[in-house]
Amino acid sequence: MDNILLMLPGPTTVDPRVLQAMGKSVVNHRGDEFGVIYDETTELMSKTFQTKNSSYILTGSGTSAMEAALANLVGKDEKVLNVVGGKFGGRFKEIADVHGINAQTLDVEWGTAVTPDMVEEALEADEDIKAVTVVHNETSTGVAAPIEEIGEVMKNYDALYIVDTVSSLAGDAVNVDKFHIDACVTGSQKCIAAPPGLAAVTFSDDAWAAAEKVESNSYYLNMPKYQKNGAKSPAQTPYTPSVNLIYALKEALEIIQAEGLDNRVARHHQAAAATRDAVKALGLELFPDESVSSATVTAVKMPEGLTDDQVRGTMLNKYGVQLAGGQDHLKGNIIRIGHMGVISYKELAITFTALGLTLKGLGKDIDAGAGVAALANHY
Amino acid sequence: MDNILLMLPGPTTVDPRVLQAMGKSVVNHRGDEFGVIYDETTELMSKTFQTKNSSYILTGSGTSAMEAALANLVGKDEKVLNVVGGKFGGRFKEIADVHGINAQTLDVEWGTAVTPDMVEEALEADEDIKAVTVVHNETSTGVAAPIEEIGEVMKNYDALYIVDTVSSLAGDAVNVDKFHIDACVTGSQKCIAAPPGLAAVTFSDDAWAAAEKVESNSYYLNMPKYQKNGAKSPAQTPYTPSVNLIYALKEALEIIQAEGLDNRVARHHQAAAATRDAVKALGLELFPDESVSSATVTAVKMPEGLTDDQVRGTMLNKYGVQLAGGQDHLKGNIIRIGHMGVISYKELAITFTALGLTLKGLGKDIDAGAGVAALANHY
Repeated sequence: MDNILLMLPGPTTVDPRVLQAMGKSVVNHRGDEFGVIYDETTELMSKTFQTKNSSYILTGSGTSAMEAALANLVGKDEKVLNVVGGKFGGRFKEIADVHGINAQTLDVEWGTAVTPDMVEEALEADEDIKAVTVVHNETSTGVAAPIEEIGEVMKNYDALYIVDTVSSLAGDAVNVDKFHIDACVTGSQKCIAAPPGLAAVTFSDDAWAAAEKVESNSYYLNMPKYQKNGAKSPAQTPYTPSVNLIYALKEALEIIQAEGLDNRVARHHQAAAATRDAVKALGLELFPDESVSSATVTAVKMPEGLTDDQVRGTMLNKYGVQLAGGQDHLKGNIIRIGHMGVISYKELAITFTALGLTLKGLGKDIDAGAGVAALANHY
Repeated sequence: MDNILLMLPGPTTVDPRVLQAMGKSVVNHRGDEFGVIYDETTELMSKTFQTKNSSYILTGSGTSAMEAALANLVGKDEKVLNVVGGKFGGRFKEIADVHGINAQTLDVEWGTAVTPDMVEEALEADEDIKAVTVVHNETSTGVAAPIEEIGEVMKNYDALYIVDTVSSLAGDAVNVDKFHIDACVTGSQKCIAAPPGLAAVTFSDDAWAAAEKVESNSYYLNMPKYQKNGAKSPAQTPYTPSVNLIYALKEALEIIQAEGLDNRVARHHQAAAATRDAVKALGLELFPDESVSSATVTAVKMPEGLTDDQVRGTMLNKYGVQLAGGQDHLKGNIIRIGHMGVISYKELAITFTALGLTLKGLGKDIDAGAGVAALANHY
């Protein structure tokens, strides 16, 4: 099964260098050697977030970091505005509910993107909003939110700007300081292309000031404790960290720096544009409007007359390429093609050759090679 | 630094087989292949817990599992009895406080163990106690609590029995069903000897019934979601799991089954007895009463006239053996020798040869070989 090509919106293929780094011996996580590794890793995270602020690594999934951000910055009965245009936007609302936070939703139709005007209007209408949550890259719909432009609105308001870049950081443009982001969270297994199991969080000074006043009811995800322990010498985490995954994350972040963040983002945009054209050349329809389509995952409407089992099943079982299906009410209605992390023309050439053959084999009257041909023009 | 011998109460030395298993390619955590691996791993966890109930794997530290148990079983303003005789017992109390749980403490002097009578008395005095938390193996003091005997008391009361076996499972006797434990939690990096980053939880039927009624204010650590997703086909976790660490945990649990749980526990007790005699033969004093001394970590009073830096520093820098120091108010007052996981006469022979030489080198009038000689008599 090792040769299944993962074309998922996470986890993504991990460089053998990263897997190898992970296999180093475990060291004491309270000792000097680990302290240096942890410091280097968090500094690399801050470089990747493009922030002057410190970053912190959580042993947990991206969801743990979403909860850490929201539950430490907005207290019980305080008001948060959750932009919801997909499953992960909705997750912030669910987290708010669990913590007794007063969640207001800004509902956006799945497949479309929130606009800066919509956020501004909501902020104007309610001055009690303490924070706004935005999912940069909604993997459930393949839509990218304009987080830079929303940041231009947010900077004029006191509300904290919380952005989930779990599936965009190191794949699409994220510049935490320039975009006026107060709390940014990400995961290890998406565009960073490390194994799953870690998440990262960075807070602005305003966010830390808010965190000091909030009585968070999360013990494991208490961010001030991460801050306090990170400042110790040697640097530490409050609870036992996943030492080997931190070795892996460090290696993956070094690979990113060596490639150059801008180059890496451009490579993802190139893959996304190539994917969209290849999809269209096979007679398929994109799910979101192309103008807001994600740089890291492309959502495609299910070809008429075919089922998810037929299309994704054939792709996996006959051609060894794993695509993602739809989630929640989009289950069975869309196919999602992840193009994250280690992504080049090679993986896409395999994917679109297979997809063309799959559709042709399932009776579609198409030129099986049209997708991969369209793709080639982008490289 | 790879040849530093870790004699810590976690993390412990990881078998190369386990590190190698961890390096396998990442697979889709929503797919059939991973579902089978996850099922096999949780079944092995239940075998290790010695319970007929299902187990669940959290991507997080042992603390995350402590919080998952307590916050899902005891609601806001409900009463919990926290047995506190060390740092980790105190952690349950801190978790209770964060969640607004009414925490009653049963304080036990650090270095001594709680008795079944003390628990019974507390339960008799207050019928509102909904759950009791006990740390089986208090690594901060090197004391083992009599969890089997406490279980004989607990079975006569409605209160749920929550036991932290983070640093004892697969090293000291833990039989969840026989000991009437309702919620048992552990970590990957102690006696199980896998890398850090995972925790495991198992609940009894009574615990699940309680969890259904509690409105937990933790999103990431919501146990009913783990139950619901674990029952799916393929089996899943609610949020992205640490796939590679689960490969490693599975391998480590298979090694445990191959050795045999009873054999493994006996090996730990042998190492503990040998350690205690070696310590005494070097003229040192045990911190806890020997009758309640842990099977997996031995706490030793700091030799008179010497500092932590001198003893542990020399052990590490001159002899390449890493011991743990004291925590909280025991900092500088005790040394802790972990003998967990892959532990045999070999590691102890190195440790006690080094410790004898260290003490002699620091001016103690002792026979440097007395410790290792005493140790040899146990094998």
